[in-house]
Formats: sequence, structure tokens, C-alpha cells
Amino acid sequence: MTLRTEPHYVLGIDIGGTKLAVGIVSPEGRLVSEVRTPTLVREGPDRVIRQLLDLCDGALVQSGLLRSQVVAAGVGCGGPLDPITGVVMEPPNLPGWVDVPLVARLSDRLQIPVSLDNDANAAALGEHRFGAGRGIANMIYLTISTGVGGGVITDGRLYQGENGNAGEIGHMGVVLGGRTCGCGGQGCLEAYASGTSIAGRVREAIAGGRTSMMPELAGSLEQITAETVLAALRAGDALAREIWEETLDLLGMGVANVISIFNPRRVVLGGGITNFGDLLFPPLRERALRRVMAPLAAVVDIVPAELGSTVGILGAAAVALAAREASELVNVVYK
Amino acid sequence: MTLRTEPHYVLGIDIGGTKLAVGIVSPEGRLVSEVRTPTLVREGPDRVIRQLLDLCDGALVQSGLLRSQVVAAGVGCGGPLDPITGVVMEPPNLPGWVDVPLVARLSDRLQIPVSLDNDANAAALGEHRFGAGRGIANMIYLTISTGVGGGVITDGRLYQGENGNAGEIGHMGVVLGGRTCGCGGQGCLEAYASGTSIAGRVREAIAGGRTSMMPELAGSLEQITAETVLAALRAGDALAREIWEETLDLLGMGVANVISIFNPRRVVLGGGITNFGDLLFPPLRERALRRVMAPLAAVVDIVPAELGSTVGILGAAAVALAAREASELVNVVYK
Repeated sequence: MTLRTEPHYVLGIDIGGTKLAVGIVSPEGRLVSEVRTPTLVREGPDRVIRQLLDLCDGALVQSGLLRSQVVAAGVGCGGPLDPITGVVMEPPNLPGWVDVPLVARLSDRLQIPVSLDNDANAAALGEHRFGAGRGIANMIYLTISTGVGGGVITDGRLYQGENGNAGEIGHMGVVLGGRTCGCGGQGCLEAYASGTSIAGRVREAIAGGRTSMMPELAGSLEQITAETVLAALRAGDALAREIWEETLDLLGMGVANVISIFNPRRVVLGGGITNFGDLLFPPLRERALRRVMAPLAAVVDIVPAELGSTVGILGAAAVALAAREASELVNVVYK
Repeated sequence: MTLRTEPHYVLGIDIGGTKLAVGIVSPEGRLVSEVRTPTLVREGPDRVIRQLLDLCDGALVQSGLLRSQVVAAGVGCGGPLDPITGVVMEPPNLPGWVDVPLVARLSDRLQIPVSLDNDANAAALGEHRFGAGRGIANMIYLTISTGVGGGVITDGRLYQGENGNAGEIGHMGVVLGGRTCGCGGQGCLEAYASGTSIAGRVREAIAGGRTSMMPELAGSLEQITAETVLAALRAGDALAREIWEETLDLLGMGVANVISIFNPRRVVLGGGITNFGDLLFPPLRERALRRVMAPLAAVVDIVPAELGSTVGILGAAAVALAAREASELVNVVYK
């Protein structure tokens, strides 16, 4: 079984509600060029797609490569979306995008194969190919920022499930009848462990009468963020400690659950929460691993993501590379 | 790609702590012969392995087949065990079995390839091949009896994880700091939803002063089982209703969690709990599906297992058939 070996590059297209980023990436994960711009999100999908095509042109010019050397494009975008049909359904961070056939629109203009996946799956593929999951067959990726997203690599490939929506680890229930989540459910992991939820729980406790240095640290109750909680934790604030301990307990249970279910070799944690550093990883490992059975605990580690701010572009590029390899594998086996 | 088509049969070997069952099964799942005997569990692994070999001989004689027509054997056994090395590690239901090289012992004597998996994975393979999961690519199997076991079929194959221990859905945490589970963890699904746990919670409530018809129904407090709870539920007992509602809530959350993570086409529920019938399935579907996001809920159903008491032998046979096909696939691709 052989794959092509001539030099080829891919476009990585990262669509966010506040910024767009496009880069040209080598198969080894070298970022050859990179361009970014704020998303003109109020102007709707047609305008944003024009922005993306301009960024693709800009990235190509900046790279110094020939157009023929760029053989595919991958897109990471907020879900829900359908990776099979290439349609973006109605992401909360892109108001007005309803059933947008993004892959068709982009491939018509770019004249190369375009593949789409949600941003958490793209990031999982990126960390697996270029970052903390290199060489790992069974890996769980969890990103914790304003929300909690997940992606699952099984036997070296992204597991997509029946219609491309697998890996919704953030919406695993961890507290029966608990806090209401953005998804409408109650007691989801995201409703406790996301940066937004951590700050929200602190604000609720203070509004309920608890004392804390955090309003002063942040400037006001409303301005408290997860970063405020981190600063207060370091300064010994009791409420920050209490909320953070509860976060660790629930996140530990959530991580233990995915370990018990998937028996992975590695859990990779990304997103803003990793700024908590040693306040996060050692206690999380302890809480998660004491919950799982010995043969499962023996083979797994829990590590920080490695790609940092490049994960959006590199993840989108990994979507393109994975699609390209899958199609070549099909050609080899069935031709 | 072609697989062999000449007639061949497999042995299905089901090892339980109270009984042993062996059958000869056709590739289509027809049970050609079946023999059972109580497990001489106190006499240790050597004696039980002799019992198994005698049962294999008995099943062969009863089938009327030639020995050469039986080409492989599959074994389902309580875990933990290692399906790759074929070693049974230390199952709680088989005291004295410590690191028993069961596959080597059986294949030495039977002179055919032998494959091993834990009983929940074997049952998942059996339901997938012959029962409620036929033709389904992405399926979750959950068996709820004295314990809660699980098996995961992804893209048509059993997902085993890094060292064969994936699918421990019963040990998913659902209540932080909750009831202690047999695994040593706290708040596992098994500690609430297993038949043993349902009866245990009832006994604890009555011991704590709650009134109920259940001690009288069962004969005494100690004799209350899940079947007592079912009878009391039908008779309108308030405590039985309360404990059952809590069970449905937590089981609904657990099932929703595996749907959010795996995006399966079907969840198959087996084991003694399915005796609850319409008291189980409609309210469980309602609770589970209202928790998961629309694109996930749209493609999944939650159905009872179909194989009943034959699941042990047919599941073990499915382990043998899956291993046989995997080895033939490898031969086709790499020869």
C-alpha cells in the first residue's frame, strides 16, 4: 500500500464567530503562511465566504507556492454541521447561517477537494497528527474554553458516529437535575467545567451572599472571568478554591467516564483552562485515575495539548489530510 | 475481497460463575446443539477447564457434525481478562482464577483457533451479528442484571480500546460522591441501575424507616430483589415507584451520555432489567432522548435485546466468527 509522495500542501481554514484564519500547511504540519481577519459575522454567510476566499488567496501569495502545489482544503467550523454533505446547519456562533452548503461553495471556487468538520473534531485531528497525540492510536481530545468540546480518535482515525456528531463529551450529564446548559439540557459537564460556567458559578455564589476578593480583582461582579478565578485561587481566596475543587471533581468524573468507555492511551486537554497549569493537571489526574479500573488506569495518561493558538489552522489542515488519505486508501483497496 | 464459503461451524463457550454452557453454532446463528452444566467453581480452573472440554465433546456428539466441520471456538467469560493474550486475569465470579492462560489451554486440546472476550463484549457481538443489532454499524449494548456491562460496536466492529477494556459503561460515574460500587468507585451507574443496587436501595430505605409492601411480598427484608420491586411497582407501592423513578432518571442520563459520545444508530438493552418491559422502555427513551442534541436523537433508537437466554453461547460464537473474519481480512489485504 503506497500513498503519494510528491510535495503537496493543504489549506487550513478556521471559521470562528469573531475571527477567520487561513494557513497553508505542509503534510508534516509546517505552517508555511498564515493570514487572519475579524469575521464580518453580521453581514451573513455570503460575505464571510468571500472573506474566506480572499484569505485563501492571501495565504497562497504569502506562501510563495504555486496554486497547483495546494491540493486540498480542510475547514473547521462551529457545529452542528454535517461533515458528509459539507453543510453547516445552524451554529450558535454564526447567526444567520442556516443549512449553508459550505463545502460546495468553497470547492466550486477553489477547484480542489474541500472537507469540513466541527472545530473540536478538527482540533482532535490536529493534535493527533501534529501535536500531543502523535503516534497514539486511541486518544480523547477535550477542549475547555467558553464551551467544552470533544473529539475521539479510535484505531488512529476520527470516530464520527452515525451522522458525524460523535464526541459531544461536553454534553455528558454529570449532575442529575443540575445547572442548565447552553444545549438546553441539565447538568452537562459544560455547565460546570467551561470557563463561562466557572465564572458564572462564582458570580451566583457572590450574588447569593458569599464574600470573595474576586469582584474587586475583576473590577465588578459582572467582569469576573475564569482568569479572575485563577488569580484569586493563587491569592488564596476561599470561594475560588471551593468552586475550583468542585470543577476538578466533576471534570475528574467526566474524564474518568471517557476513560472507562474508550480505554484510550491518552487524554489530551486543550483550551483556555490549560492556563490553570499545575492547579489543573496533577489534581485532575489524581481524581480521574482513582475512579477507573486498574487495567484502564495502567495505560492512559492525561496531558496538555501542544498546538496552542495554531490548533485552528493545523486542525483544519488535518481534516484535509485525513480526507485525502481516506480517499487514497479506498482507491488502493478497490481499484 | 472474498471470504470462505464452505460450510463451517464454531463452538460457543460461555463461562459463568454458576453454570457453563457450550453450543455449536452455524455462521448464520443457528444453534445446532447445546449442553450445560453447573460450574464446579470451588474446584478451581483446572477442573473447570476439564468440564469445558467435556462439554465441547458433548456438543459435538449431539450436533452430528464431523470434528473437521468445527473450525474455531469463542469464549465469553467474566473480566478482567486480556482478549489479545487470551489470559483470564481475576474475575470476581471465578475465585482462584488468577492469570489463567485460557485460550492456550483450550486451543492446545481443541486444536482449533480459540478467541476470548469478556461476557458483555461477547453479548454485544452476539446481538450485533444475530440479534437486535443486525445490519447496524454503530451500536451500544448495555446489559443490566446483577451488574451493568457494556459493549461498543463502531463501524461494524467491536471497539476494544488500547488494551481490550473499552465499554465499561457500568462504571460511568453518574453521582459525584454517590453509592460505593463493587469496583471500589463511587456513584457508578452500576451502583444505582443494577438489579442488585435497585434491591439494595429499597432495603436501605426500609431499614431507614420507610414503609412498603415489599418485605411482605418477598417474605423478608433480606429477600427483596429487583423482581420484588417490579411486583410492588405494579401493585402501586410508593417506595417502589420512587426508587424506580430515580433508577430511570440515572439510567436515562447514562444512556444519553453514551449517545452524546458515540452518536450510535441503536442502543440495545439486555439482561434481567428488560423484564420491566413497558415500565422501562418508554420512560427510558423519553428521559434519554430529551437530554441529547437533536441531530443525535434523530438517528438513534433504544430497543430490547433479542437473544434472551441464548446470548451467552451465541455471543461466544460471534467472538469466534469475528476473529476468524479479521484474520481472513488480514490475509486478503497483506498476502
